[in-house]
Amino acid sequence: MPLRFDVLTLFPRMLDGLLSESILGRAVEAGFVEVGVHDLRKWCTDKHRTADDRPFGGGAGMVMKPEPAISAIESLATPGCLRIYLTPDGEPFNESMARELSGSPHVVLLSGHYEGIDQRIRETVIDREVSIGDYVLTNGTLPAAVLIDAIARFIPGVLGEEKSLTHESFTGKLLDFPQYTRPVEFRGKSVPEVLLSGNHAEIDKWRLAQRIEKTRQVRPDLLK
Amino acid sequence: MPLRFDVLTLFPRMLDGLLSESILGRAVEAGFVEVGVHDLRKWCTDKHRTADDRPFGGGAGMVMKPEPAISAIESLATPGCLRIYLTPDGEPFNESMARELSGSPHVVLLSGHYEGIDQRIRETVIDREVSIGDYVLTNGTLPAAVLIDAIARFIPGVLGEEKSLTHESFTGKLLDFPQYTRPVEFRGKSVPEVLLSGNHAEIDKWRLAQRIEKTRQVRPDLLK
Repeated sequence: MPLRFDVLTLFPRMLDGLLSESILGRAVEAGFVEVGVHDLRKWCTDKHRTADDRPFGGGAGMVMKPEPAISAIESLATPGCLRIYLTPDGEPFNESMARELSGSPHVVLLSGHYEGIDQRIRETVIDREVSIGDYVLTNGTLPAAVLIDAIARFIPGVLGEEKSLTHESFTGKLLDFPQYTRPVEFRGKSVPEVLLSGNHAEIDKWRLAQRIEKTRQVRPDLLK
Repeated sequence: MPLRFDVLTLFPRMLDGLLSESILGRAVEAGFVEVGVHDLRKWCTDKHRTADDRPFGGGAGMVMKPEPAISAIESLATPGCLRIYLTPDGEPFNESMARELSGSPHVVLLSGHYEGIDQRIRETVIDREVSIGDYVLTNGTLPAAVLIDAIARFIPGVLGEEKSLTHESFTGKLLDFPQYTRPVEFRGKSVPEVLLSGNHAEIDKWRLAQRIEKTRQVRPDLLK
């Protein structure tokens, strides 16, 4: 059974290119992943198809109304599915959450809106609130695509070589080591000798030392 | 002068939908932001247009070759531009970096590749290595779009209401308060009384308390 994603958004066309290109496009084509993209306005039933309204208590911007989003998620949800709202005030998305979610049969992703969504949507039809990072975007459609891409990588068969999951950033809480490919010399900069030595024990030692040093410099928080 | 972004990627079509939709699409149309998307293969000059090669020292996956990316960035760069490589081992992108980068005249974004890129690309033509979060994606094209979207929000005129930048997550290192809009009652859940009171001092007090409580529960790290 492929992992099914349903994305609910006011900007469904944002995802057109993402789902047809690259590894994710191939994963969809090969049947490892299914992605449905739904225009929230389909569930806006008033004559103007209004999706948002002014916030109670005042403030700038518009807030997503409760009825359309709740009806939409109720109609997309299946038993055992996980309903996620993408929001900068959610729990931080990371590699272990991506791995965990790759075991779900069905994930429904709600893309938020400018100033946010009515709190009752969160309380009624959302299982988990997730943030892709400490910054604010114009809406949650890109974050939905980020989750799909990161999760899909953990589905067996999606990456050509299974091994490419084993050596990379965040494995063992360390950043990745520097990579080099041909030519050996380029504009006076050479590939480090050890990588050309064929001595795999030395190469492993060098790579681990590089990972520790890079993590210490760039992300000391990961070593705590 | 609009802020100019150039994205260098092996998957240029991934960005088709993103740049024509939503607030970002409007910002491009209105001339606040210019985005050029470039296929790295244009700079692959061998007869097979090879962009990657096997890593020295062994390991799975393919590494982006130095020549095409370095030539491409050299031809796209302008004096005073900032050249960013999107990578999970970079410094974490956040709201203050987005604000800072919105003051640049020109940002060149290099989208990484599977197992990474030749280290000499980083050393020769990259000013800053940036990560959008602690997870790994199939390539850096989505992260490039995330940066463009988050940065564009800080360009005056891009968001309809200037004020929508002032109350939101990460302002003052606190997450956002809950939002409510009409109807007052929906499926037995009512809007909190205080928001209907018209008492703005009380509303502000309630919202601040909610922000502190949500931050304490979901992101205690922000309060440190």
